[in-house]
Amino acid sequence: MNASAAPLRVGIAGLGRMGRHHARALATRTPGAQLAAACGPTADERDWARRELGVEALYDDFAAMLRDARLDAVAIVSPTTLHAEQTIAALEAGKHVFLEKPLALDVASCERVVAVAERHPAQVALVGFVRRFDASYQQAKADIDAGLIGRPFLVRSQTGDMNDPDGFFVRFAPTSGGIFHDCSVHDIDIARWMLGAPKAERAFASGTIALHPGLAQCGDVDNGLAIVEFEGGARAMFYASRTLAHGHEAITEIVGTAGSVSVGVGSRRDRVKLSDRQGVRHVALADFHERFREAFDTEMADFVAACRGEKAVALTLADATEATRIAVAITRSLKSGQVETI
Amino acid sequence: MNASAAPLRVGIAGLGRMGRHHARALATRTPGAQLAAACGPTADERDWARRELGVEALYDDFAAMLRDARLDAVAIVSPTTLHAEQTIAALEAGKHVFLEKPLALDVASCERVVAVAERHPAQVALVGFVRRFDASYQQAKADIDAGLIGRPFLVRSQTGDMNDPDGFFVRFAPTSGGIFHDCSVHDIDIARWMLGAPKAERAFASGTIALHPGLAQCGDVDNGLAIVEFEGGARAMFYASRTLAHGHEAITEIVGTAGSVSVGVGSRRDRVKLSDRQGVRHVALADFHERFREAFDTEMADFVAACRGEKAVALTLADATEATRIAVAITRSLKSGQVETI
Amino acid sequence: MNASAAPLRVGIAGLGRMGRHHARALATRTPGAQLAAACGPTADERDWARRELGVEALYDDFAAMLRDARLDAVAIVSPTTLHAEQTIAALEAGKHVFLEKPLALDVASCERVVAVAERHPAQVALVGFVRRFDASYQQAKADIDAGLIGRPFLVRSQTGDMNDPDGFFVRFAPTSGGIFHDCSVHDIDIARWMLGAPKAERAFASGTIALHPGLAQCGDVDNGLAIVEFEGGARAMFYASRTLAHGHEAITEIVGTAGSVSVGVGSRRDRVKLSDRQGVRHVALADFHERFREAFDTEMADFVAACRGEKAVALTLADATEATRIAVAITRSLKSGQVETI
Amino acid sequence: MNASAAPLRVGIAGLGRMGRHHARALATRTPGAQLAAACGPTADERDWARRELGVEALYDDFAAMLRDARLDAVAIVSPTTLHAEQTIAALEAGKHVFLEKPLALDVASCERVVAVAERHPAQVALVGFVRRFDASYQQAKADIDAGLIGRPFLVRSQTGDMNDPDGFFVRFAPTSGGIFHDCSVHDIDIARWMLGAPKAERAFASGTIALHPGLAQCGDVDNGLAIVEFEGGARAMFYASRTLAHGHEAITEIVGTAGSVSVGVGSRRDRVKLSDRQGVRHVALADFHERFREAFDTEMADFVAACRGEKAVALTLADATEATRIAVAITRSLKSGQVETI
Repeated sequence: MNASAAPLRVGIAGLGRMGRHHARALATRTPGAQLAAACGPTADERDWARRELGVEALYDDFAAMLRDARLDAVAIVSPTTLHAEQTIAALEAGKHVFLEKPLALDVASCERVVAVAERHPAQVALVGFVRRFDASYQQAKADIDAGLIGRPFLVRSQTGDMNDPDGFFVRFAPTSGGIFHDCSVHDIDIARWMLGAPKAERAFASGTIALHPGLAQCGDVDNGLAIVEFEGGARAMFYASRTLAHGHEAITEIVGTAGSVSVGVGSRRDRVKLSDRQGVRHVALADFHERFREAFDTEMADFVAACRGEKAVALTLADATEATRIAVAITRSLKSGQVETI
Repeated sequence: MNASAAPLRVGIAGLGRMGRHHARALATRTPGAQLAAACGPTADERDWARRELGVEALYDDFAAMLRDARLDAVAIVSPTTLHAEQTIAALEAGKHVFLEKPLALDVASCERVVAVAERHPAQVALVGFVRRFDASYQQAKADIDAGLIGRPFLVRSQTGDMNDPDGFFVRFAPTSGGIFHDCSVHDIDIARWMLGAPKAERAFASGTIALHPGLAQCGDVDNGLAIVEFEGGARAMFYASRTLAHGHEAITEIVGTAGSVSVGVGSRRDRVKLSDRQGVRHVALADFHERFREAFDTEMADFVAACRGEKAVALTLADATEATRIAVAITRSLKSGQVETI
Repeated sequence: MNASAAPLRVGIAGLGRMGRHHARALATRTPGAQLAAACGPTADERDWARRELGVEALYDDFAAMLRDARLDAVAIVSPTTLHAEQTIAALEAGKHVFLEKPLALDVASCERVVAVAERHPAQVALVGFVRRFDASYQQAKADIDAGLIGRPFLVRSQTGDMNDPDGFFVRFAPTSGGIFHDCSVHDIDIARWMLGAPKAERAFASGTIALHPGLAQCGDVDNGLAIVEFEGGARAMFYASRTLAHGHEAITEIVGTAGSVSVGVGSRRDRVKLSDRQGVRHVALADFHERFREAFDTEMADFVAACRGEKAVALTLADATEATRIAVAITRSLKSGQVETI
Repeated sequence: MNASAAPLRVGIAGLGRMGRHHARALATRTPGAQLAAACGPTADERDWARRELGVEALYDDFAAMLRDARLDAVAIVSPTTLHAEQTIAALEAGKHVFLEKPLALDVASCERVVAVAERHPAQVALVGFVRRFDASYQQAKADIDAGLIGRPFLVRSQTGDMNDPDGFFVRFAPTSGGIFHDCSVHDIDIARWMLGAPKAERAFASGTIALHPGLAQCGDVDNGLAIVEFEGGARAMFYASRTLAHGHEAITEIVGTAGSVSVGVGSRRDRVKLSDRQGVRHVALADFHERFREAFDTEMADFVAACRGEKAVALTLADATEATRIAVAITRSLKSGQVETI
């Protein structure tokens, strides 16, 4: 980082839980960045940005923030249904874009964004598949690239959230796209990354409702399983759960012809073990924030470095599009009960 | 064990690797048992039984051994294709039967054995699903029965063998029934056991050939994945591999509404860890013999105890039949590429 | 094992918990052995041997059992104070001897046994340092001998027992020789074995009473620490505890110039993990019986094989003497509070 | 953090490896702090601070920096021999002080600092025992305070560095105070913290030179062991190594009457495991920077928060003095070979 270069001026759209996390990171610990504006629909949110982070340029309208000529970039952390259109608008306004995942819940929207981005090749457009920025996932990828497991041909990956007895996500279900869009899209992206981005061909999914019957009305489940077949023989197996008792699990195993590498087995929160009458135990991670805290910072730092021309980011909009394409097929299979072509 | 009771006189059929293992156990360390006869097609095998174990009654013909009135029981460790008929013959000859898994590769054969067994209710007929006799699997089952994980609704289970560069199993493939009959049948039986024996409804399987192209000609794979749906919403996910680099894996996770329990994660051979320039490592289990050495002994001891009326064994021929029924459907799905009804 | 050779006829002296364990092993699962006689002071003990194991030659007097000419060997599992004299008597009666550890609580007694044994070189005299027969400790030793950790120069080893709220061992304390003789003698023997049997020079010990004040009157503690210095620079550090809450720990780390190897870290009972609201946990080993069950069998099998001339056993009476010599010095230091010469 | 409050203006003294780490933290990621000045003896160091961190007030003389009236606080990361005098000077100049550990290598110096600090009660003086700011050590302390292990009475703690074949620390040995001052002082501080700060009474130490004979001339060792006795019966056992092959180990176990808690067992660098022909392995932490990266940030953030009156810091100069007092006695014992009174 060159201390003398002008910082990248970023405006953030969306000040919910994830939005506030990214906002704080941009304001206090992202090298080379300055949180220069914030946009949120409620006065509370905007007050928070002013009071906590000292942001002065506050907007209730995304288009208005895009017209702020002092901004170099925007971070979009709004509801999923707005992702594609806001990204397109921001690119057309000449801003670099960081977009929380997913790109969109349908492939057509993804492809419209890709088309716009292709017309703005000098602007960065990064979708926040945060695991790509996690040190452990990066190490696994490096191990694979170094040939340590031979040719990778199988990924087994799972995302499990600790059960929320209040079932917040049940109310969120109608717009989340379902469990595979919401949870497994990370596993899908990681599988593609680790396997070298083969073309997905077919998908089968199944699922069950263990604890949240309210999901039935939108065709969703709280535990889902899927198998994806890729061209050339590679396979992936996904498990997503909303009902884990002990904590958050983000676990991936990549199997190759000469070995395998895993990330996240055990889901330990920290380096503490307790031994007592019940045996020997450790606390598990509470949620993905706890698991990927550092990765979120790295992700934002890499975005800013990419905007400043200091670093390339390998993750493309095409990757995000393929992740959506696979999640769509898996979701379709969950509903049809049959194998679906991707 | 009552030291004064007469020992159970057992004849063994089949003196291959598994057969010799069971023969030695019966001869030297199974309480209440006496290895009284052995049957094998080659003189070498019979010589081994005489020389190593002091067996005097040696047969080259199974029917002849069954006519040996001194025998109370037979242990059948012959090729799979003989399992059903030999079991039927032994039951009709009035012997208790221990049979290496699987019962048969087709459901009709299983059902014929069940029908015969029903006419001989006083005789024990035990299929050697060895994991049922493993202390760790038994503990997991006890934990579930004690309510520690709430209602179990999902099993993820895998059986992986260390790659055999010589590909012995490729030559064995035409008669093995395929990877799911050969490896996953254990996982299937365990899944049913842990879930409370729900009725299986549908199956989907996929697979790939990572290292052994010779398998293609009999429609088999060296890495297989399957999802099974049970009545009432329970689900199971299986992974079978012939190509692991580091050793044998027999890993099962049972997920419930209040927790989960796993067996076998890590596949550690022993209690040794080595720390050097490469990091911290442990050796993995070499094969299922190493993993289930004690369970094989328990299994045989429980069989003998059951024959002597000292202990009930919960595993039934109906369980073995259901395991075959599911393996058949999974195997059919692997070939059809579609979801199959069970 | 040659099935045709006559079995080794063994008489056992001592039918307490350990004695019964060894008796059962000899009677039912030690290849080449026959439990031919048993000696115990109470009618109950002798009845047990007859009823459970079918032993017919029963003695209430050790000397009488030694006069039984049919016996090839004796297994001495009597109180520690009798070990040396019974071993001497048995050797002089022409029997092979298996002796539960320790050889004696004083060096002079050890040396008297050694002197007698030297006059009977054709007879086996094996002290049961069971960890030498444990597969994991043997693997660690093999790894060291293979050079995997370079030159070993430091051993850290601990023996911890689960707290017995009834404090049985407090009543046993006056004759046990104290915590270091009772628990650490195993660690001491292992340290010498792993380090290549260097000469011990000095010892320092400290300790505390955490839960059992009754130990104070015999100068014992329920948690003890010791450092031992060996000629040539090697060092050992021991920890012994009577008060662990979670189970039994037998953990050893051997540090070398190019790596380290550990045995027993984690003290897992089995291959089960449970995940629930409290985190992820496993059950610890309950006691040394559970930890070393297989090693006890191997130990007895190796003893019998040694008596039959089929296998050499590397562990000598001199090793047992040195272990006692070091335990004596550590115990002296605990009482003096000063460094003691060994 | 109140975004509108003026930042704490900090000057840093010492721009070696640790100094640069703290300088970068103060400049880029410590909430509420501003790195306003830097002091180093070489032009290279000062250039680095200007170029990399944009620091404009640069000094080659510590006293000169103290005269900079704009500074609220100083961070002293200079050679150990300067710690006490610089801290005294800074306190007398009215600055808050953050001081890298140790406070001093002799108790008299510590006590002089304490006396000065007592005359400046409004100024923060924090010695950087970084483990106190580590999330895992804090969790262990919280677990103890919550009564999860009953009454803690024993700490076993070790600090091991990966062997540096170049032996940098050998050249550093004459001024480091020896292995116990340099490495074990962290373990000593942690032991006191976890045990509730009992008074130390006696110490015994031993050691060996495994790989670095050059240490002999200053009486140091590359592997050291120590036992410390506290008033009231608590005990601690320390192990320090300069020669680990696999990485850095900072491992502590605290044993109580109802359980035990450990921190750092396994020394895993990340969440990756690799399975191949050699078994299953993970990479160990490379050094204390990698292990305590986050804790260093927390430490500095807590220092700044304390200076701003937002947070109390429990760690006192008296704690640092006691750690030195114990390290001095241990070091004396290493040289005398006898038990030393503390």
